[in-house]
Amino acid sequence: MFFISKKGGIFMNYETVNQALDAMHHLEETAAAYEHVMGVTYLDAASAAPKGSYEGRGKTIGVMSQIIYDLIANPENEELLSYLEENISELSAIDRRKVEALRKEYDQINKIPAEEYAAYEVLLNEAQAVWEQAKNNNDFASFAPYLEKIVAFNRKKAAYFHPEMQPYDALLNEYEEGLTMQTLDAFFAQLREVIVPLVAKIGQAAPVDDSFLKQNYPIDKQRLFSDYLMEVMGLDRNYCAIAESEHPFTINFNNKDVRITTHYHEDMVASSMYSVIHEGGHALYELGCGDEYNYSFLSGGVSMGIHESQSRFYENIIGRSLSFVKLIYPKLQELFPEQLGSVTAEQFYRAVNKAEPSLIRTEADDLTYTLHVMVRYEIEKQLIDGTLCVENVPAEWNRLYKEYLGVDVPNDTLGCLQDSHWSGGTIGYFPSYALGSAYGPQLLAVMEQEVGSVDKLIEEGNLSIVTRWLKEKIHRHASFHKPGYLFEMVCGKFDAAYYTDYLVKKYTDLYNL
Amino acid sequence: MFFISKKGGIFMNYETVNQALDAMHHLEETAAAYEHVMGVTYLDAASAAPKGSYEGRGKTIGVMSQIIYDLIANPENEELLSYLEENISELSAIDRRKVEALRKEYDQINKIPAEEYAAYEVLLNEAQAVWEQAKNNNDFASFAPYLEKIVAFNRKKAAYFHPEMQPYDALLNEYEEGLTMQTLDAFFAQLREVIVPLVAKIGQAAPVDDSFLKQNYPIDKQRLFSDYLMEVMGLDRNYCAIAESEHPFTINFNNKDVRITTHYHEDMVASSMYSVIHEGGHALYELGCGDEYNYSFLSGGVSMGIHESQSRFYENIIGRSLSFVKLIYPKLQELFPEQLGSVTAEQFYRAVNKAEPSLIRTEADDLTYTLHVMVRYEIEKQLIDGTLCVENVPAEWNRLYKEYLGVDVPNDTLGCLQDSHWSGGTIGYFPSYALGSAYGPQLLAVMEQEVGSVDKLIEEGNLSIVTRWLKEKIHRHASFHKPGYLFEMVCGKFDAAYYTDYLVKKYTDLYNL
Repeated sequence: MFFISKKGGIFMNYETVNQALDAMHHLEETAAAYEHVMGVTYLDAASAAPKGSYEGRGKTIGVMSQIIYDLIANPENEELLSYLEENISELSAIDRRKVEALRKEYDQINKIPAEEYAAYEVLLNEAQAVWEQAKNNNDFASFAPYLEKIVAFNRKKAAYFHPEMQPYDALLNEYEEGLTMQTLDAFFAQLREVIVPLVAKIGQAAPVDDSFLKQNYPIDKQRLFSDYLMEVMGLDRNYCAIAESEHPFTINFNNKDVRITTHYHEDMVASSMYSVIHEGGHALYELGCGDEYNYSFLSGGVSMGIHESQSRFYENIIGRSLSFVKLIYPKLQELFPEQLGSVTAEQFYRAVNKAEPSLIRTEADDLTYTLHVMVRYEIEKQLIDGTLCVENVPAEWNRLYKEYLGVDVPNDTLGCLQDSHWSGGTIGYFPSYALGSAYGPQLLAVMEQEVGSVDKLIEEGNLSIVTRWLKEKIHRHASFHKPGYLFEMVCGKFDAAYYTDYLVKKYTDLYNL
Repeated sequence: MFFISKKGGIFMNYETVNQALDAMHHLEETAAAYEHVMGVTYLDAASAAPKGSYEGRGKTIGVMSQIIYDLIANPENEELLSYLEENISELSAIDRRKVEALRKEYDQINKIPAEEYAAYEVLLNEAQAVWEQAKNNNDFASFAPYLEKIVAFNRKKAAYFHPEMQPYDALLNEYEEGLTMQTLDAFFAQLREVIVPLVAKIGQAAPVDDSFLKQNYPIDKQRLFSDYLMEVMGLDRNYCAIAESEHPFTINFNNKDVRITTHYHEDMVASSMYSVIHEGGHALYELGCGDEYNYSFLSGGVSMGIHESQSRFYENIIGRSLSFVKLIYPKLQELFPEQLGSVTAEQFYRAVNKAEPSLIRTEADDLTYTLHVMVRYEIEKQLIDGTLCVENVPAEWNRLYKEYLGVDVPNDTLGCLQDSHWSGGTIGYFPSYALGSAYGPQLLAVMEQEVGSVDKLIEEGNLSIVTRWLKEKIHRHASFHKPGYLFEMVCGKFDAAYYTDYLVKKYTDLYNL
């Protein structure tokens, strides 16, 4: 069989399981090839492409989305799936999971009308360009019509996929299977109970000086520092490249081709530094996936929550530890002698951990970070259940920032236009960041039972032992295990107390509370 | 109708011309979308991708090439073409040319077996990576097996496409319709008759000092200079971006999305400078194509000869003129005060025009450039007619460089591994450079009859008048006119004497011969 064109609508009757498996594997490879070229096109658009090029890209995305839709929604896949499901007992564990994955995708995509699917992809391409402009010009009004359409599509999608669920639960489910508002409401309440009093206490403590982070740090030197950080993290540059984009992200094509991006701010050295470490954590996950999952329905990281658990583990538990700062500090001082020559590693460590209610999520410290996520969670819930209309997003955003973080938002560029998620069509993703953050300390506890003190490993320059452990336990499985199962397999039942304990200990020590 | 999958092998009977035209236009848009994503994938591979990523890209290219092959080779296109050809009198001039273009592509692709087509695309992806390594390591032997397969495919292709022609003529025809060895042999003989004695005379003249071009020119400053050059050339950065690659090239997705690349050498400031101007000339052509040709069979520049006429016009006739050097020199001195503070614009002008037999084609001066092309032409002719085997390419290359240019080739990195064309599968392309170079002075003569002295326009900062003229006469037509017709429409019959006169005048003046 070759792709859908060759079978030409005449349904094929599979005679053997191997024949059907060949057909499925061919479909996987074809889907992976489309995903690859569309991924490269996305990366190009976000990094290298000239700003005015979105129109032609929109046409291409429109055409390709339709073809990709047809590839999966193709009724012949029903025949293939039915045959394989009937013979499921003869399949290997991996092929069984692949059948499950294709079944889910097939059922879902068939619930979205083809023209809605392609129109949405075209909308997102345009929304990305409009959002970038809107953010630069502090012009929410120009982005609002796009956000409205994106919200409308997501509400529809929720109803198409899971009419039995509350719409926002259906969206959460896309990024973390089984996650619900009920779980999150309780989880966030538990976090707030610990975080809010901690933040208040810190407000009374002696302030941390982080002014030296905000000097002029030439971008060409920051680029060299990114290269160094990637080296320290053990990211093999033969398989992992770095680019620059408005908003940092990671994209993977297979386990030998992963890209991270960062954004340099001349007056904030810690911004790109922690973006690189964060995205580097995502990249290690993708690079660590088993070869056997490449170009298949089970390729790549399994869920956003697990993914964020890896990236935020590297960013915060590793990257914001004193031992890590000490490890990389000689290089930092070498690159920025004027800026940091008279600043000690300890001072730097305290500065990058300064806990302070602020405006920008990606720049937030580990402690207040979750409060930023909660703002977005509350807004998304309301947008999707219809109690908040798009034009009121800025006001609600500002109100919640005041309530949760106690800060006044001066404009939408520093407010509700700061993130690229909504313009990228992702609603229901933000909670994964909080979940991923909370997974980290529990992972650490299990890891340390097996490899000893992680601080000590970092001090000894043995970060690779940490990565190897994560690869063994998490990365190599790619999308074979479902996320909840995978986490429990490694750590036992999820318990947010690991996270709150970690926060309390870290900030009590830092601020001598 | 949507793409081939929906028609499912059941042939469609067109009832109206409009119905058939809709089908053709849809096919054009689909083909353009594939071309776009494959182009972005190529650009990514050559600029941003990590070196070790070719394996996964190879799989993707294999899958996509097969699909693209099916898209064009699809027998339903025969039905579409026959219907439109029967009703050709009812079509607009543009649609007629599109039918012609599709007919040519359809007939050609159907002559190549599908599996050979896809295997070749995969081979080229790998060959690109192997060639880069081979060039860096001066290791022709590692590249030889790839070149052998590429030559073998090109010989087959020649026989598939034009069994009635001599094989190398068939390949030439791909890049410049109607071009033959007979024409080229005469053309090159005419050039040699003028160039060889000129070069000899220059060898006796007072040498030009170009040592200051070979100082250390930091790459970050060179990058700023590229930005400046693009601005001077009127390349709209909203639609045209620049990247970095091993070998400079231009790639276009539509007339609002064109990319050029360059390669920076820290010790050769003129190298990237003239690459940017050369590729900028290609880019102006693509950016100037009429909107009506976007996403169609007639999009983009019409042939390699016409394309090179634009790029080499900018590189040499504009870029290496005294008036242009004077125009950009203040910026150069500002960026490189230590290197060029005590060098005058006139000295710089003489240095970038220094005529001297050398090793590297892309660094060659305007006068000896064609001799580099002739070496490649002679080798390609022999490879394709079977009188030279791949393993003897280095020896033959070195022998011809000695004979034509009088230089000894010290190694293959500076010899037969220097260009990316063969690893990219293009055999028969090089002569277009010489043809394009020769078109330039004749274009200039016609242009000056209409707009007056181009030197004066440059001095006055009115380069846009030159570009506007070229856009009006050449660029806007995209691939509507055949290349020979287009050139004659603008310039009358091609006469190589314009070129030889130009060379004689230029170098007689420069060297006071």
